[in-house]
Amino acid sequence: MQRYFVPNDQMSDKQVTIKGDDASHITRVMRMQPGQSIVCINQKQRVVLCMLESVDSTEVSASIKEEQSVQTELPIEVTIAQALPKGDKFDLIVQKGTELGASGFLPFSAARSIVKWDAKKSAKKIERLEKIAKEAAEQSYRMKLPVIYPNASTKQVIETFHEYTACLILAEEQAKAGETSILAHQLTNMKPGDKLLVLIGPEGGFSEDEIVLFEQAGAKACGLGPRILRTETASLAVLAAISYHFELMR
Amino acid sequence: MQRYFVPNDQMSDKQVTIKGDDASHITRVMRMQPGQSIVCINQKQRVVLCMLESVDSTEVSASIKEEQSVQTELPIEVTIAQALPKGDKFDLIVQKGTELGASGFLPFSAARSIVKWDAKKSAKKIERLEKIAKEAAEQSYRMKLPVIYPNASTKQVIETFHEYTACLILAEEQAKAGETSILAHQLTNMKPGDKLLVLIGPEGGFSEDEIVLFEQAGAKACGLGPRILRTETASLAVLAAISYHFELMR
Repeated sequence: MQRYFVPNDQMSDKQVTIKGDDASHITRVMRMQPGQSIVCINQKQRVVLCMLESVDSTEVSASIKEEQSVQTELPIEVTIAQALPKGDKFDLIVQKGTELGASGFLPFSAARSIVKWDAKKSAKKIERLEKIAKEAAEQSYRMKLPVIYPNASTKQVIETFHEYTACLILAEEQAKAGETSILAHQLTNMKPGDKLLVLIGPEGGFSEDEIVLFEQAGAKACGLGPRILRTETASLAVLAAISYHFELMR
Repeated sequence: MQRYFVPNDQMSDKQVTIKGDDASHITRVMRMQPGQSIVCINQKQRVVLCMLESVDSTEVSASIKEEQSVQTELPIEVTIAQALPKGDKFDLIVQKGTELGASGFLPFSAARSIVKWDAKKSAKKIERLEKIAKEAAEQSYRMKLPVIYPNASTKQVIETFHEYTACLILAEEQAKAGETSILAHQLTNMKPGDKLLVLIGPEGGFSEDEIVLFEQAGAKACGLGPRILRTETASLAVLAAISYHFELMR
């Protein structure tokens, strides 16, 4: 069933109002009619089954038929601090990372990031990534939208470390050196509601200086197995491992 | 360091010969010179550090300087039986799946596969996927090339079940129904060298008839967590989970 995120003020006790692109999607793409059902989720993770009442390409209203109580969010909040990669790889990282449960994505300019986002490019990119995240969140039955943070510097990323329960650096050197236990150890020590920041380098990896700065600020370098993963694969692999740890290993 | 797979007959005790596209890659793309080093891997997973001796765009020869003993293969062999997806998603599945350690990819026409591969298209596609797998295997430090099997029917896929230790169906219905323990249970019961077949449906999922046929032939349906993953994300998530289980959870 089609799912739509709505702001809290568009979901009352009994009624949901859908505006903008989503209203247009319901009428023009899905060609839905009054009487058909959709699922809506507000910013408090309230999930409701609704029946469409009036349908217009600028505004759709629906009545709430049922509260849904299924939990689809990862028990810990994972933010992916991703050094800017080349090409359109960030699109893939956000789409797949959203499906796999990430709470946020923090793009940043690492020493070896070849791509630069200036202020104008950054605003456009972030708008695009927010759209990708919303579509992926709806398609994958997420209950909240991941946050796309503004493009930061390495220094600014480090300044956010105190907001997290733990910070991990996915480091190729550690992978090559056969480090295999830090991730599992860290996850075992986390409890529901904890916040994890995962730092992922660009194509050329982090510089030694960056690793030192991250470690001095409290982050731990860890490997992700014996194979060397591309930057866009690393975020997906760590999120899938976290899902396996918390959601499937019982 | 650049890595190249070579046939067994091109690696002797002391010497490696590299031909074809790889010789051209060494000379024209990497512009390497005699005296520089590469790593070569033969079909017996022998990994050697070599020094280039003579360099020509059709044939490169190198002398073996060191045997390398690092193990980068998943302890179990995982074959992804992937129902044909739309567009170029199979490229992504093979590239990322190779990085994440898959032993093979078996494309097949499921009931709801919209795409069809005829004999001519199939040959071209498989050649393309083999090239993607080779590049990804070299980049990710794999010790063997994943096999790309010819496009099969559902019936033909079922006929291969007896070759595997276990067969799992990644089923959206199971995910929605909250099944979360079969994958971990299955992995816990597997030992190094065992073979796992993972069946993944097309965009619309498997039909009920297909699931019944698979189950009658001994496969088990399992969920992959509470979120609904796109078909191309499912293979990556299951491989990352398998890596976490066998390689990182100590």
